[in-house]
Formats: sequence, structure tokens, C-alpha cells
Amino acid sequence: MSKILAAEVIAIGNELLAGYTINSNAAFIGQKLLEAGIAVRHGTTIGDQPEEIITALETASQRADLIFVTGGLGPTPDDLTKQTICRFFDSRLIEDPAILGHVEELLRHRGLGMLPANQAQALVPDKAQVFLNQVGTAPGLRFEKESIHFFFMPGVPGEMRHLLTEHYLPWLRANFTLPEIRTHLLRTTGIAESRLHDRLKDLVDDEKLVSIAFLPRYIGVDLRFRLENPDQPGRQYFNQFIQAIRERIGQYIFSEAEIELEEHLGQLLKLKGLTLALAESFSGGLIADVLTNIPGSSDYFLGSVTAYSNLSKIDFLSVNPETLEKFGAVSAETALEMARGVQKKFSSGCALSTTGIAGPGGATDTKPVGLAYIAARIGNTETVREFHFGSDRLINKKRGMAAALELLRRLLSETR
Amino acid sequence: MSKILAAEVIAIGNELLAGYTINSNAAFIGQKLLEAGIAVRHGTTIGDQPEEIITALETASQRADLIFVTGGLGPTPDDLTKQTICRFFDSRLIEDPAILGHVEELLRHRGLGMLPANQAQALVPDKAQVFLNQVGTAPGLRFEKESIHFFFMPGVPGEMRHLLTEHYLPWLRANFTLPEIRTHLLRTTGIAESRLHDRLKDLVDDEKLVSIAFLPRYIGVDLRFRLENPDQPGRQYFNQFIQAIRERIGQYIFSEAEIELEEHLGQLLKLKGLTLALAESFSGGLIADVLTNIPGSSDYFLGSVTAYSNLSKIDFLSVNPETLEKFGAVSAETALEMARGVQKKFSSGCALSTTGIAGPGGATDTKPVGLAYIAARIGNTETVREFHFGSDRLINKKRGMAAALELLRRLLSETR
Repeated sequence: MSKILAAEVIAIGNELLAGYTINSNAAFIGQKLLEAGIAVRHGTTIGDQPEEIITALETASQRADLIFVTGGLGPTPDDLTKQTICRFFDSRLIEDPAILGHVEELLRHRGLGMLPANQAQALVPDKAQVFLNQVGTAPGLRFEKESIHFFFMPGVPGEMRHLLTEHYLPWLRANFTLPEIRTHLLRTTGIAESRLHDRLKDLVDDEKLVSIAFLPRYIGVDLRFRLENPDQPGRQYFNQFIQAIRERIGQYIFSEAEIELEEHLGQLLKLKGLTLALAESFSGGLIADVLTNIPGSSDYFLGSVTAYSNLSKIDFLSVNPETLEKFGAVSAETALEMARGVQKKFSSGCALSTTGIAGPGGATDTKPVGLAYIAARIGNTETVREFHFGSDRLINKKRGMAAALELLRRLLSETR
Repeated sequence: MSKILAAEVIAIGNELLAGYTINSNAAFIGQKLLEAGIAVRHGTTIGDQPEEIITALETASQRADLIFVTGGLGPTPDDLTKQTICRFFDSRLIEDPAILGHVEELLRHRGLGMLPANQAQALVPDKAQVFLNQVGTAPGLRFEKESIHFFFMPGVPGEMRHLLTEHYLPWLRANFTLPEIRTHLLRTTGIAESRLHDRLKDLVDDEKLVSIAFLPRYIGVDLRFRLENPDQPGRQYFNQFIQAIRERIGQYIFSEAEIELEEHLGQLLKLKGLTLALAESFSGGLIADVLTNIPGSSDYFLGSVTAYSNLSKIDFLSVNPETLEKFGAVSAETALEMARGVQKKFSSGCALSTTGIAGPGGATDTKPVGLAYIAARIGNTETVREFHFGSDRLINKKRGMAAALELLRRLLSETR
């Protein structure tokens, strides 16, 4: 049984402390390392000052086996990290001809000339193992000091991801026997966290072996399970444990993989040979946006009309003016007519529509901010639901999007 | 001149280390504190283990005046933070009747009964100053130990924001003389970071007094300026310095406030009494989504057609089938016809259209992934541009959205 290596992630950047940039790199690194059997135990964020960097590296050396550092390797002159690294590792900068050639080539490809700052990126500490960064100009640098391994990456997310997944993880797998970490994901939708926990509490509350996380998202609640370094009975127990959960809450689980509800829905539509069109008002284009984030979505997604005005609901979606007059734009009747209209116009198998008051303005005496109607159609089968979301416009749009996708998912599971 | 207080932000949660949750709280806290004249010097992320929490609190006490802790105060049984806090502050849990009443009231309002876990939330350490959390059940807790102040908040972003802005910042302002921190923002679009830096390098590279950050985003590059504790000549210098930058790169600055390009564009349209309609293919609904994120956007945004199929481009946008035949769906000609068609259909003053190959599929011999055409119209004035984005579908959509908004912004500034 191999030891679980402890990692620390150090993010360097004044912009992170000032809150101008959200540190999403740390989450990516944490997930990828965990999948590989390495556990991040500490995260540290510091500014660009050399003394802070040295202190953070020293502190991390005392508690981690592997240290991943992001930021401070860019082409701007305020990046002092490389000199500081040299000090820490008792190293000096030398020019790396391979990196120089790569930087020249990359800039030429982008139609740009070589600036002194670019030239400086080919200077690397002589004690580092240098990894070519195929998607940017700053190379990856690995050091070893007193059996601790240090991995330096630029802070640009795309470049960090490239170096971690294409270079550092393969290097780690080749140089360490990484332990097994069993993980499993149950992705639920249509049930609140407290109710989900209530249904499962006799199973999860006193569980000692498997760690369980309830992770609420707009789209639903993720359940994540983890077991470190299991033996054979442990693996069996893990599977049985998840099976017990699955049996209890199966109807709310839409996926057991790292895919989003929109991707799952796309796979369902493809499988059933159905196409989809949208009539969005409340959700304002967000459903079209998330659906078209999925590669290949043009196979089943025909298009969408975002109809913000009454006139566009009549013109583009053939909503009856009398319906708008009698029930209002925010009504179950209008939602249904929008879905029918867009389905007909696009000749699609399925349709979804949203109408409501996203806020903060637009409320009336009888229709408060957060009120929404969402309709779904498959062929001639249709359903419409009333929702009462909150007062935050952006959260309302997200919850409306999630509710619409879930409504269609449920309707699809009910029709053969 | 008052001393700048040094803050540390500690985030507690295994889900943060595992990367299941992105720590966006830290950025929010950093920004709000900086605005108030408090500088975050360290960020720390740790798991839910009591020993880790104690160590992190001890370490922070040695280098910070103010310590902000998020996470670990929720109603789930694995939250051991409160007991650990009691240990660290030599305190014991007592029931707070005001908190108990608030929790009962809040649950009643949500139509829920009181669970033992909810009851436990009214237990607070006797040495804490307790702050009522109006938007959730876990109260805020403030401690003082050896002149260091500790502020505990739940990890739920909405609750953290509420406690920080409504309780802790007012408390800090009332109990400390906070120094002045001058900040300024120049929000640019339409120019790459390296070119922007090149134009400004004689001004910014050797600047010692004002700190300057170049912050690239999809929409453009933010320039953020900061001056700590300025005297009168310092303030004057700060203003003159920014004025010099403004004169150099004025054409790329779209805002000097914390507003996004879509909001700026909305203000421009409103000011000019113009309406907007969209024909999206490449951007797949993203432009409609970001535009409708702005409250009151229904004043100028009429609607959008996301036309993913050739047929929908013909039916909804009146694109000539011969144009599609001759030039293809991904062409300047089609982009222009899409903009014309949607402008006419919605009777809008302005129109934007996008067509292209977002990837990863869909490339042909002559049309690679990342190729896009974006057209803008104001009245009968129109423009179309060819773009070569990259290979990442999601980034392509974002860059296409940003380029479209910038194209319209420029066209608006050119027409009276």
C-alpha cells in the first residue's frame, strides 16, 4: 500500500489577494491531483514580493511532498518570481536554446515580433528540469530539494492546465507509485440539499470509511464519495455503499459522470433521435448558451428565439395576442403557446420555453419578481410548471435554466 | 497617517482542497477589504480537520491584524469548526435565544420544521460577539485575542457577503481609523495585453509610487491602479498619472467603473434611443445571455435568434439560400445578411450577428476551427469582420461575444 502524497498549492499574485482575479486554478489542480491519487492538504495565496515567496516555499517544504506553484512566470517585468526561485534553489539563470526557439516560433505564428521580455522567457534556472509549454511562452520548471518536488507553472489557466496534465502528471506517474483513490459521483437534480440529506441520513451520518460531500449547485446537488487506498473488501464495501444510495434516490440522479445536465440531455435527445428548439424570455438566452457549449450540439439543437418583447412573442413564436391580453406575458398559457410556436417554426421534436419576471424591475401587484412559467413539449405531449425563484436576477436566470432542463429530462423519461 | 491593517483570509473546507468548489469568496473579501483600506496579505485554504484549523489560526495570528474565516459553520454534522473555535479561544458553547428565535422564524418562513441540526446553530461560543445572519441560519462570530480580531462566516457566498458587508465592515469602520487607499480602474477592449503594455511601458515600468496591474480578460484588459495612504501631493500625482495613461490609450477605454462591456453598451444604446436585435450562430446565445444579465435590458434589447441550422438562417433571418450556397454559412456575406434579416424582423435600430466554426468539429479544407465572421449594423450603416480565434469551443464563444460587443461599440462611437 503506497503512501498518499501530500501536496500544497501556492498561488502567487497581488491580483489574487486584491480579489481582481478568482483563483480557479487551485480547484483544477486539486481535482486533477486527487484523481491521480495525490491529496492537496494546503492552499496558500501570496503577493508578488520575494520574501513572501521564499517564506511560502519554506513553510510548504515542511508539510508537503509535492508543491505546485502558479503565477509569476509571465512576460511582464514585475514578475520577479524567477529570480526569487533562483535564490531559493541556489541556482542561476541560463539561456535555454530550445525555449528560445519555441518562443520565436510561437510569436512568428501569431504574427508578432520578439520583444526583450519575450527573450527573457528563455532564461531558466540551471538546476530546473524545463518543460516546454506548447500553448504559451513561459516554460514549466521542476526542482527537487531535500526530496521535496516543486512544480512551477504560469498563472494563465490554459497554460497551467497544459503543463499539469500534459507534463507534470505524466512525470509523477512515471516517478512515483501513486496509490489508488476511489471516487464516485452521483449528480442529482430536482431535490434540495436538506431534503436529500434527510432521505440519506441513516446511511451517511455515521459512515466512517467512505467520505461523502454534499455539493449544492444551481442545477442540483452533487454527491461525491471517496475512499483512500482501499483493500479488496474496502472496494466491495464502497460499491455496495453507493448502490444503497443509488437505490434510495435513483429518480433524482441524472448522471454518474462529470457531465452537466445540458450534456446529459443532449445525449438523451441524440439517443432518441429528437431535436430541440427554445423560446426564451425569462432565461434570456442562457439555455441556448449552455446547450451550445456542448461540442456536437448542432446535431440536435436547432435554434432558439429570445423574445423579450410582446411583439416578438407574437411575430416569432405565434403567441396569440389575446392570450397575452387575457393572461399576460408571464403566464402558463403564454409559456405553452411559446413552446408550441417555436416547436412548429423550427419543426423540432421537442421544445422548451421560459417566461417570467427575472427582476429587479417588472413586478406587478399580482406577479412578483421571481415568478416564472416553464413549458416543455415532446411531440404533442406538453407540460407547464409555475416557479417562485428569488430576487437576484442572475441566480433567477440560472435556476430557470436548470428547471427547464430538468422539466424536459423528466418529460423525456416519462415518454418512451 | 494610519497604518494599513494586514488581513488574512482562511477558507475551511475539504471540498475546496479537492477542487469541487472554487473559492470565489476569497476574491470578494479581498476586494471589499481593499476598498475599505485593509490589505489582504495572505490567503490560506485548509481541510475540515481541527488540528489544521488550530494551526492555521495560530500561524495567521503571527502575521495578520485581522483574520477572516469562511466555512465550517453550516448545519451539517461534519462541521466541527465551532468546537474547534471554542478550543482555540478557550470558550464554551451557550445557547443564544435571539439566534434560536431567528432560526425558527427563518425555517417557518420557508415552510420547514426545526431539526436538531438547526437547533445546534443557536449554540455560540460565550466569548464571541454574535452577529445575526439575516439571510441564513449560521450566525457570524467575532473574537478578539491578543489584539488580533477574528471574523468567522459561513462558506455560502450569499451569507458570507451579507455578514461581511452588513456587519463586519461597519464594525471595522466604527472601531478603527482606516487609512485611505486610492484605486482607479481603466477598462479597455480591442487591444492585446502585450501591445497595451508596449504603448505604456515608458510610463509604467519604472513607476514606484502607484501600483499598476494589467489584468487580461476575454473582453479586454483591465488596468488597475492603487496608491496606499497618499498625502495631498500624492493624490495629485495619482490623478495626473492616470490622466497620462488615459491620453495615451483613450480609444480603447470603454469604462472607468466596475461595469462590463455589455452594460456599457446598454447605456450607450439607451442614451442614443436605439434598440438591438441579435442573430447568433457562432456565439450560440451567449450574447443574448450577457445582455439580459443587465437589469432593465428589456428597454433596448428586443430579442435574439440563435440559428444553428441553415434552414433557420433562411426561415428566421431571411438569409438568401443562394448566399449560403455560394459563400457558405461561415462567410462575411452570410453574417451581413443575418444582421440585416434580424434587424428587419425585430424592427431594431441596431443588429449584431455571428457565424463561424466554434469547434472542435465542423472544420473544412478552407475553413478552420476558430474562423468567425461578425457583423454589426446601425440603421443602414454596416460593418463585418473576419476573426481567427483558437481551438477551444468555450473560449471561442466568449471571444466571439466580446468581439461582437466591441464591434458595435466602435460603430456606435463612429456614427453620431
